[in-house]
Amino acid sequence: MAIAPAVVDRLRAVVGAAHIRTDSETCTTYGADALRRGHPADAVVTPADAIEIAGIARVCFDTRTPLVPRGAGTGYTGGAVPVHGGVVLSLERLNRILEIDEGNLLAVVEPNVVTGALQDAVERVGLFYPPDPASLRQSVIGGNVAECAGGPRAFKYGVTRQYVLGLEAVLASGEMIRTGGKVVKNVVGYDLTQLLVGSEGTLAILTKIILRLVPKPPARITLRATFLDVAKAVEAVSRLISARVVPAALELVDAECLAAVSTYLGGRALAPEGTGALLLIEVDGLPELVAAEATRVEAACRAAGATEVLRAADEAERNELWSVRREISPSLKVITPLKFNHDVVVPKARVPQLFDLVDDLRGRFDLRIPCFGHVGDGNIHVNIMVSPDDTAAIARAHQAERALFEGVIGLEGSISGEHGIGFAKAPYLGLELTEETIAVMRAVKQAFDPRGILNPGKIF
Amino acid sequence: MAIAPAVVDRLRAVVGAAHIRTDSETCTTYGADALRRGHPADAVVTPADAIEIAGIARVCFDTRTPLVPRGAGTGYTGGAVPVHGGVVLSLERLNRILEIDEGNLLAVVEPNVVTGALQDAVERVGLFYPPDPASLRQSVIGGNVAECAGGPRAFKYGVTRQYVLGLEAVLASGEMIRTGGKVVKNVVGYDLTQLLVGSEGTLAILTKIILRLVPKPPARITLRATFLDVAKAVEAVSRLISARVVPAALELVDAECLAAVSTYLGGRALAPEGTGALLLIEVDGLPELVAAEATRVEAACRAAGATEVLRAADEAERNELWSVRREISPSLKVITPLKFNHDVVVPKARVPQLFDLVDDLRGRFDLRIPCFGHVGDGNIHVNIMVSPDDTAAIARAHQAERALFEGVIGLEGSISGEHGIGFAKAPYLGLELTEETIAVMRAVKQAFDPRGILNPGKIF
Repeated sequence: MAIAPAVVDRLRAVVGAAHIRTDSETCTTYGADALRRGHPADAVVTPADAIEIAGIARVCFDTRTPLVPRGAGTGYTGGAVPVHGGVVLSLERLNRILEIDEGNLLAVVEPNVVTGALQDAVERVGLFYPPDPASLRQSVIGGNVAECAGGPRAFKYGVTRQYVLGLEAVLASGEMIRTGGKVVKNVVGYDLTQLLVGSEGTLAILTKIILRLVPKPPARITLRATFLDVAKAVEAVSRLISARVVPAALELVDAECLAAVSTYLGGRALAPEGTGALLLIEVDGLPELVAAEATRVEAACRAAGATEVLRAADEAERNELWSVRREISPSLKVITPLKFNHDVVVPKARVPQLFDLVDDLRGRFDLRIPCFGHVGDGNIHVNIMVSPDDTAAIARAHQAERALFEGVIGLEGSISGEHGIGFAKAPYLGLELTEETIAVMRAVKQAFDPRGILNPGKIF
Repeated sequence: MAIAPAVVDRLRAVVGAAHIRTDSETCTTYGADALRRGHPADAVVTPADAIEIAGIARVCFDTRTPLVPRGAGTGYTGGAVPVHGGVVLSLERLNRILEIDEGNLLAVVEPNVVTGALQDAVERVGLFYPPDPASLRQSVIGGNVAECAGGPRAFKYGVTRQYVLGLEAVLASGEMIRTGGKVVKNVVGYDLTQLLVGSEGTLAILTKIILRLVPKPPARITLRATFLDVAKAVEAVSRLISARVVPAALELVDAECLAAVSTYLGGRALAPEGTGALLLIEVDGLPELVAAEATRVEAACRAAGATEVLRAADEAERNELWSVRREISPSLKVITPLKFNHDVVVPKARVPQLFDLVDDLRGRFDLRIPCFGHVGDGNIHVNIMVSPDDTAAIARAHQAERALFEGVIGLEGSISGEHGIGFAKAPYLGLELTEETIAVMRAVKQAFDPRGILNPGKIF
């Protein structure tokens, strides 16, 4: 549906002519995200501040026009796609770090601060913002909060949720709310802060975010261990947890990923012959601590049958060890250009069963399915690879996807640990949640957004 | 209001005659909690399981009867008091630990498991449940979740919220929902788990709780440092944070508390003459780590001007150091039998300003106001002491209370970090939250409980 010219006029009056566009190219560009299944917007607005955002919301509320907030558009489930058209509200001009408060270990930011830029800024004063989604050089804090982004450091440090102390947000009606604040404990009324985290832009538009910071760990040691199979790697993880080590990163890469990275990097061997699983482990903290932890990590890996354990001697070697993990995403394109990228999660001791399930899917559906991810959290990225022009393979991929989700639920897991539901996973919501639970979520949506204008077509 | 005999009959049919009581003594006992401002229930039911709880909810929903869930009744804000009468639903029979899953570091419990009993059970298998409200030998996990309880270990380990992975709960309508699950990451739909944590029994009745556990820290060192004033103690806290130490406990006790404990214990000196603030600091983790951290703690305290720093050599000395902190609550009764016990919180660097504010209140209102608490979180227990028969003092105490809350809000703090709102703090909600924010909370309440039967008269 196209929006009426009168609506565009009203929006123009709010943001100024320079900050509303309705041309087809802009509407198409802002209608797509990392999912690559876009839908054009009818108009794109780039407001200057919360007051203009409130004005935009009032126009859309009055006219029942879909209103889709957008950060960097790096989401994998289509969260920023205006599937019903309407107005895309890009937060790109709200991109300032407002405050870094060293004494109180917190930062106040606008939503479109790039996550990596915030990390750099706080690290310059000896502080640390741990959440590190792979997209951290592109994605923005607002999007990270809307999706509750994770990343390798979640095992030790937790996900985005654990760092959000307070929010300022504009409701669908144009009213503004403030939740939480600058304190680390707050039990005054319902925790709307935590409710808004992960709500995918369907409950409110975030305009200001108060983040908890921690002191920057002064030392870090990176290790890499290889194993004949995933079960042995998971055993190493169990052993190091039993040894009371809490790594800052604990990443697993499977043989199919290793092969893809090896091909991508020109064929050089990345691990000993026969490697079925590679663990990348990083410990951080006080120098005395990391030395002790690294020793325990080595012992745990060897006790679990590691074929090789390497320890980075310096930053260059650290980068070398991380390169395998970092190159996975571009490398997977050597298999096929298209991936259905899933972020399933299971109780951590069931990771071997998850890999058995994936092995079964590979055989049953004749598909390449490289896997990697955050094994300490039981959160594995399962990439179902297909060629965009192979419709038979795409059909098999969708069957495999459903079988994957059903299998994960059977393991008491969840269909999404990091990416959210958006519209890509909405058809599968009922696999994980009961009707009654979904009904409560819908009632919450209705409470925040009675006209259903905010990011419609998502989650449910 | 009394409930109709027909309602009692229907409830009896659900729980059986042995599990419903309407006698005055029972209704009065179950109508009071640690706030000591009770209101009698009309009936008290003790259901066996979630199915009976659902049946009770359906009866109350049909008949619009107030339904108040109750754990151990240790709350300080009257959360378990049936201020509008009706049915008190005591969860006392749902008191089993259902599962301790060592491989996946989680426990599944019914709501009325005593917090300390769960801690003991998981520690026996080398695991650890960190949240440690002072009432842990009486209070239960369900109440801890309903209030989002904190405790000394929150600085390092976080509050109850950070340990709740999933819930089973009965809605006001009698429908059952399940939120979250056995995984540490889950972004499928809205985070109803986190919304229910801290909702004070106003949104749903918890029937099962999945808790995250961590490995038990193998070593621990306890230190005590004394300072001439609170500002120097807070400086020590800042210095140890800068030194990258994250203590498992970081408790401050002020001079007025010290004097009360000293009187209570028969007049013996507990700290060097002239002590204005005492810090109790505990570090835990790997043995190599705690030794290094303890050294840094000592250095930080001395650099901030500590008059004395003691380190416990063994468990007996540890208990001796903790005794001052532990005896505060009973000791305060030597000042007056009644305390208005507030759990305000400010950004941590503003703790000295909070103490200045309290000093001002002491003078302005002629009241004894001993303070202690979790200084690392900026969360200080401010105890306004009065005699129950001194109506003039009680009036001044209420004035001081309001001035305290206003002052705390002025410091960008919160009026409650641990105890919740209940009905005792409900009149002050508007000091901290805007009308628009409260309206959203009310809409959420309406979404869960359209007839307003669950724990009415609380929070708002």
